[in-house]
Amino acid sequence: MTSLQHVNPRVRGIRVSPQSVLQSLAERKRKKKKIGVQKPFQEVIDLSSGDPHRAGMKPVSFIRQVLAACLYPELLEDESVPLDVRLRAQRLLEDCAGGSVGSYTPSSGLLHVRQSIAEFITRRDFGVPSYTKNIYISSGSHRALMVIVKLLASGEEEARTGVLTPMPCPHTLPTLLDEAGVTLVPYRLIEERGWAVDLEELHRAVTTARGRCQPRAIYISNPGNPTGHVQTRESIEEVIRFAAAERLLLFVDEVYQDSVIGLDREFISYKRVLFEMGKEYADTVELVSSHSLSCTCIGECGQMAGYMEIINMDPEVTHFVDTMLCTDISAPVTGQLALDLMLKPPKPGDTSYDTYTQEILLTLTTLSQNAQRALELLNDLPGMSCQPVMGGIYVYPHLYLPSEFREEAKTLEVEADVLYCQKLLKEERVLVGAGHHGGATSSHHLRLCILVPCDTMEKVLARLCSFHLRLMDGHCGPERSVKDKNNQKRS
Amino acid sequence: MTSLQHVNPRVRGIRVSPQSVLQSLAERKRKKKKIGVQKPFQEVIDLSSGDPHRAGMKPVSFIRQVLAACLYPELLEDESVPLDVRLRAQRLLEDCAGGSVGSYTPSSGLLHVRQSIAEFITRRDFGVPSYTKNIYISSGSHRALMVIVKLLASGEEEARTGVLTPMPCPHTLPTLLDEAGVTLVPYRLIEERGWAVDLEELHRAVTTARGRCQPRAIYISNPGNPTGHVQTRESIEEVIRFAAAERLLLFVDEVYQDSVIGLDREFISYKRVLFEMGKEYADTVELVSSHSLSCTCIGECGQMAGYMEIINMDPEVTHFVDTMLCTDISAPVTGQLALDLMLKPPKPGDTSYDTYTQEILLTLTTLSQNAQRALELLNDLPGMSCQPVMGGIYVYPHLYLPSEFREEAKTLEVEADVLYCQKLLKEERVLVGAGHHGGATSSHHLRLCILVPCDTMEKVLARLCSFHLRLMDGHCGPERSVKDKNNQKRS
Repeated sequence: MTSLQHVNPRVRGIRVSPQSVLQSLAERKRKKKKIGVQKPFQEVIDLSSGDPHRAGMKPVSFIRQVLAACLYPELLEDESVPLDVRLRAQRLLEDCAGGSVGSYTPSSGLLHVRQSIAEFITRRDFGVPSYTKNIYISSGSHRALMVIVKLLASGEEEARTGVLTPMPCPHTLPTLLDEAGVTLVPYRLIEERGWAVDLEELHRAVTTARGRCQPRAIYISNPGNPTGHVQTRESIEEVIRFAAAERLLLFVDEVYQDSVIGLDREFISYKRVLFEMGKEYADTVELVSSHSLSCTCIGECGQMAGYMEIINMDPEVTHFVDTMLCTDISAPVTGQLALDLMLKPPKPGDTSYDTYTQEILLTLTTLSQNAQRALELLNDLPGMSCQPVMGGIYVYPHLYLPSEFREEAKTLEVEADVLYCQKLLKEERVLVGAGHHGGATSSHHLRLCILVPCDTMEKVLARLCSFHLRLMDGHCGPERSVKDKNNQKRS
Repeated sequence: MTSLQHVNPRVRGIRVSPQSVLQSLAERKRKKKKIGVQKPFQEVIDLSSGDPHRAGMKPVSFIRQVLAACLYPELLEDESVPLDVRLRAQRLLEDCAGGSVGSYTPSSGLLHVRQSIAEFITRRDFGVPSYTKNIYISSGSHRALMVIVKLLASGEEEARTGVLTPMPCPHTLPTLLDEAGVTLVPYRLIEERGWAVDLEELHRAVTTARGRCQPRAIYISNPGNPTGHVQTRESIEEVIRFAAAERLLLFVDEVYQDSVIGLDREFISYKRVLFEMGKEYADTVELVSSHSLSCTCIGECGQMAGYMEIINMDPEVTHFVDTMLCTDISAPVTGQLALDLMLKPPKPGDTSYDTYTQEILLTLTTLSQNAQRALELLNDLPGMSCQPVMGGIYVYPHLYLPSEFREEAKTLEVEADVLYCQKLLKEERVLVGAGHHGGATSSHHLRLCILVPCDTMEKVLARLCSFHLRLMDGHCGPERSVKDKNNQKRS
């Protein structure tokens, strides 16, 4: 029998995110409910990860209709199905081998879909050209990142590949880097500046890392997961110049590009900025940018498809991207087709145009309202403060926990924000994520997905506020709960 | 810019299967056709991999209808959709978070589907119990294997993990083992005995390997890909005893379990045999068996879902299977639901029962007829002989190529069977796979998927026979082409 000592040491070394632990706990609560052990609140509401359909957001009808028709082509003859849906499904099926979504696709994805992606990028970037040959479809942006990181992974000790990683970062990222066998090189985002990327901090990170590992890439999430920050053009230029000077591959996760809600910001892609900085950068900086179906307006997380565009990589090296995609599994065909639909939505005049436009607008309005409402309420609580949300689908409040609570966590050998989430789950049946800074700082945060129906958001905020006030009261005594909030935050 | 020297040495060392090269060639031919450069035959027919829908096989209506309704729940109200389809879709959606196939699932898959899988296995194995906790859904059986192999991978040189691998094996397997960083330990299947597994050969393989690496697992494909062999109960018992004695994890790919067409064989699962061998084996031999949507009767390769059942693994070790599945991507939700439908088909009395039964029967009849027809024609050709097909979806004929042809291949630095496939593709626009023996023997084979519509099979066989006879004639001169076939085979 395989014993623990035979397990791949790298696999044994994979850090388990606190998220997994919390989710198992939530799962047990759900099961208890099923077997009839009731609590005052019926359902566990889970806002800990970016999974909008789970929380009750609705899918985009057009996408679902076309996919249904692709799966079951008899619908192509059904006149109750909108004409543009049927035409689109027919067109997509023509590009599937044997006219079926049940056949394999090339490992980098369906050619037709890759063409649609390149056209979308070119439109989005006001004419900066994108070429089909640079587009690789994968089973989501996480998987795209895995391919790139594995490509670069090599060496041990000080020769080991390092990847500059923001703190905070998407909670799945440290695990991914562990599995790929590269060193996580943390760089702090600056909370007081709305979680902006700071050039000096990047320099500090890369300088400190040298000698400890070989930094070869930098990961950026823009709009920020979980920070909600959206970079300015100047900030993007800084990062590009930094990557160029340090000869780092730049991996930009741009999954939430469709959801900038800060009034003074817009989404500008790294690709576009790179090209507008002139040939010195446009022709040299190695850039990989990713996008996926789990973006804001679509939220089709369960359909597992995304893409990456790779710029300025040596063809000898991209050859191995192909090799890796061959050994990896392809994105499911329906997911690939959904990408096409996401990036080539109905046009004015098409039967589905109005419904489509209304659905997208409703999603963005919901997101924007939830962000505003969450900020209002959370910033009003003692011991909590939250940076503005400019984009993305999370709020990421800072917790200033009473020292007694922090001591309790220490005794239990758990991070204080994880303990907070456990208690919140137990008492209010709300699951939110605990901040992840990979031990880089001792500050504590919560991560809440705000892409949920407004009434769900209200319920969650009410339960969270009630729990939080109880916690602060219980630990500080009633006389301290009304204390000046700013004083407490400094504690 | 990342240079070749920075690419992960393990990635650089991945062997590219000749299949990739042949498929790129076929792709170029297809493109030429699209831009109007016509050849006498219009379409390239690709039978090189197990991709039945590509070749024109039809999907199972019930599965597609339920999936369409899950994607687009308005169909639940549509009375033209069969009642059992609507009820089933409703039931499946209840188990998806938020009632949507767009939400994430737990990393080992939807609980409800895992339960269905365990029930299916218990029924299939005449009551040998299967437990939900042992079932892990993955993005196909290839991915399941990758998880297990990565789990076991460790060490370098003589401490490196080795995996006993049949020759011939599925063409994707050597690449997978390379990527995982384990040593392929070949064991020959015995062609003259219909590609049976030979116990002495297993002993030879493991003994030779010790000192060169640490054999920790054995991979078996039953029914055999690409051999078409189906193991007898005795043969399975032998392998189990061997694995027990050598303390090897036994990974059995049983994807084609639904397609035994040899009259004197039936499919018996390793799990069942293991349990019927008594506690000495049933409680100790570590067994992982896999199955997937790309099986014969369903053929939904593009939907990317499968499962594995893990028996007798130390819970401390299975913990890391969970960890690895967490870092891997989950199977798409629609794929997971399709697994449920595949393993719990309509029952007598259900509206869809008759259609379902007819469709499955048609598939199996087609397969059986094609196998018979292919064997008849191929065994009649000079310089070709083919073992009987007992199950699975391939024929795997042996090529006895003229020495001039083999010389030509040598000059071109390509395997003779790969050159054969290239010429066949060029001259007849038929793509078949070249045999893969990983350099273990110098014999040459072709791999043809026979799960295709009968008329397609006829077309392919006609073109293949015509090409083959021309080739034999060209190289041997007309007087030799009518030579006694058996003599030539001995050459």
